[in-house]
Amino acid sequence: MPKVRPALLKGFDQEFLPQEQLQFNALVELIRRNFERFGFLPLETPSAERIEVLTSKGGAEKEIYALSRLAAADEDDEAAAKGALRFDLTVPLARYVAMRERELAFPFRRYQIQRVWRGENPQVKRGRFREFYQCDIDVINRETLSYLAEAEIPSVIYSVFREMAIGDFVIRINNRKVLKGILQHFNIADGSATPILRALDKIEKEEKAAVLAELERNGVAAKSATELYQIISTRRQTNEALALLTDLAYANETFVQGVAELGKIVEAIRQFGVPEGAFAIDLGVVRGLDYYTGTIYETTLVAHPDIGSICSGGRYDDLASYFTSTRLPGVGISIGLSRLFARLKEAHLLQPLVRTPAEVLVTTLAPESLEHYLRIAARLRAEDVNTEVYLERAKIGKQFEYANKKGFRVAITAGPDEFARGTVKIKNLATQAESDVAAGEIIPTVKSMLNTKVH
Amino acid sequence: MPKVRPALLKGFDQEFLPQEQLQFNALVELIRRNFERFGFLPLETPSAERIEVLTSKGGAEKEIYALSRLAAADEDDEAAAKGALRFDLTVPLARYVAMRERELAFPFRRYQIQRVWRGENPQVKRGRFREFYQCDIDVINRETLSYLAEAEIPSVIYSVFREMAIGDFVIRINNRKVLKGILQHFNIADGSATPILRALDKIEKEEKAAVLAELERNGVAAKSATELYQIISTRRQTNEALALLTDLAYANETFVQGVAELGKIVEAIRQFGVPEGAFAIDLGVVRGLDYYTGTIYETTLVAHPDIGSICSGGRYDDLASYFTSTRLPGVGISIGLSRLFARLKEAHLLQPLVRTPAEVLVTTLAPESLEHYLRIAARLRAEDVNTEVYLERAKIGKQFEYANKKGFRVAITAGPDEFARGTVKIKNLATQAESDVAAGEIIPTVKSMLNTKVH
Repeated sequence: MPKVRPALLKGFDQEFLPQEQLQFNALVELIRRNFERFGFLPLETPSAERIEVLTSKGGAEKEIYALSRLAAADEDDEAAAKGALRFDLTVPLARYVAMRERELAFPFRRYQIQRVWRGENPQVKRGRFREFYQCDIDVINRETLSYLAEAEIPSVIYSVFREMAIGDFVIRINNRKVLKGILQHFNIADGSATPILRALDKIEKEEKAAVLAELERNGVAAKSATELYQIISTRRQTNEALALLTDLAYANETFVQGVAELGKIVEAIRQFGVPEGAFAIDLGVVRGLDYYTGTIYETTLVAHPDIGSICSGGRYDDLASYFTSTRLPGVGISIGLSRLFARLKEAHLLQPLVRTPAEVLVTTLAPESLEHYLRIAARLRAEDVNTEVYLERAKIGKQFEYANKKGFRVAITAGPDEFARGTVKIKNLATQAESDVAAGEIIPTVKSMLNTKVH
Repeated sequence: MPKVRPALLKGFDQEFLPQEQLQFNALVELIRRNFERFGFLPLETPSAERIEVLTSKGGAEKEIYALSRLAAADEDDEAAAKGALRFDLTVPLARYVAMRERELAFPFRRYQIQRVWRGENPQVKRGRFREFYQCDIDVINRETLSYLAEAEIPSVIYSVFREMAIGDFVIRINNRKVLKGILQHFNIADGSATPILRALDKIEKEEKAAVLAELERNGVAAKSATELYQIISTRRQTNEALALLTDLAYANETFVQGVAELGKIVEAIRQFGVPEGAFAIDLGVVRGLDYYTGTIYETTLVAHPDIGSICSGGRYDDLASYFTSTRLPGVGISIGLSRLFARLKEAHLLQPLVRTPAEVLVTTLAPESLEHYLRIAARLRAEDVNTEVYLERAKIGKQFEYANKKGFRVAITAGPDEFARGTVKIKNLATQAESDVAAGEIIPTVKSMLNTKVH
């Protein structure tokens, strides 16, 4: 029979071998656990939304994958005619909150760990896929949202990446009002701020001359461009940055309000327990999105600035203005987990698995003793120990090879000799230590082995 | 500003409020835990596959959703040109095993809990969606697969649904060789078996006369049709069914082989610890799919036959013949979780949540005492207790309303009086019991409350 080549679709190709899948899932669980630790509850939304919902904000059309039936297109099929895959988790959240406003408890704190799809050019080396996981949290309130919600976010980020143990990181914060106030001082009108912010966002990636040229091309005078570059690009300690902003003392209201907000938020971030070295004001944090209005966040690994931001987000004043006239201010962050995982793996920063769900393999030497092997497995499972019985006929060496390849931690072996003596052999596959254990002692022996961490 | 109506796409509309999402996730976790208990490891595959991969077996084109760019279609975009959403988890598994044959440990035991998409007519009442979750396990080996793998499957099903506690259920098994042998006895050739099996598959849903008519339309003589109907439709105890098959003693090899296989497998199912009442041979279990070759499974709730099979699958001799010439026999089952959840909810069979991730809410009475509230929360979180601090300014009544709506189990309250005394008030939100607790006793008090199950 002619074969179809078993291959993956370009950009839809972050797929793992079992041990990698376990490592990926361990990161998902770590993130979930930390989000829940702060009172965020899970939400999942459908993969596809109505096209008018996805495009309500405009601008993303080029990246959106629409659905169509492969054959026999049914004209009544609304999903095929009007549906497309979500490109982020924020638009579905806005639609969700607008739909269910009356039923939700506010402030609404949700986390969402799901796949999104973007028809961008995939770059496997940079960990950019067309299908990828995002892990988002948002806090949404009605009408008003305390600055404390903004101040809490770094403590969640800190909690996640501290536990992830991938090296020192800095949560870099800035404030959109401060940025806007600075631009106002340089006579850059609100309407023309977007290309200027976009130019400033390139400070870390591009040469100074290129950024200055882009600023000037967008109407900033040469002297102002240099001054602006100097303010934005310099790295400072948090207190130095606050002092600089106080010294600058630009006389526009947006700036004054932004600096006051930033000062209050920094004070609260400290109260939330984020250590001084783990966060910093960075006036160079710009974020592309128009809709942020307060604090903005980026997180970088100190030893791996090349990886870029591993967790970003910000405060916004109105989540769902396209769907409802209720004002829904909020704050949120997103971890691009597929990219993060790919880059961490490449940089050898992934922690080895502390726990694998493959715990005990019961090998089978004597097919006629099946009932005996099954009874051992049943007893272990009743004690919440994950146990597999090797059911194919194979030499013992092959069974141990299987146990090691799959990452089992313990193997139990028994043949006629052991049955005669009423014992089994229990082997710790990490240390290779093996001992004879009486049938009645199997459970406590295995449990104490499993409670000893692998590393 | 004109608003876009916040609405879901037809068929892509199983979306939950937070408490329902928690119930759904609890079922996912229960299933995952039981699959892992038996040595199955997780796999996720990309949502979209190459169209030639998805259509390799043929027949599903009408249901497949292809991807296309919404705007500015890029002709180089392979995903847009050649990609489509998977309609099940079996074709991706076949592609995966064929691609990674050299790297996997065999027998390969994987579970996969992911969404699939089918452009069918959605029927919300019957729990049929266009986007839905499937929870699959499969055991795949190379060249041969022991009948014990088939016998183990009911013990996994039993473990899942026993823990789910949704009422008595029966795992109904049959054997494809037995079915084929019976058809051979009635002179129904292999080539024309499919419409006959399809007719027999309707025994539970349609009147006897309709089924008989359909059999006759497909070339079965009236007398044979009646006899066939009688054999297939009668419910029997497992031993009665085995006795009947022995009595029938049809003299074709397929039948003889099938009956022997079924007998051995029943014996092993008992050894695997599945109680007699939880499984039965049912010659009326037919399964539509051509590719099953041995045991086939369906699972029904005794009190809710209307829900249909909640877990089905079977043994097949060659998983990936479209992709590789290696013979990959296997056995697998699937739980259609979206449908199951919808039907269980409708039948009021869902268990209340035993544990919610929303554990402690620290209410805030005195904004100037923020640091104090935050310290309590930090201490609880350090002890793995999920804790949220209410950060908006609101009256205490509103904060408790929030706590109840979100399902918190414990609330901690402290104002100037409590601070002066060095205590806090801790309230068990399930029992409404409240007590004053010294600051040093907060952790043990909360922990003991949380360890008391809600129900």
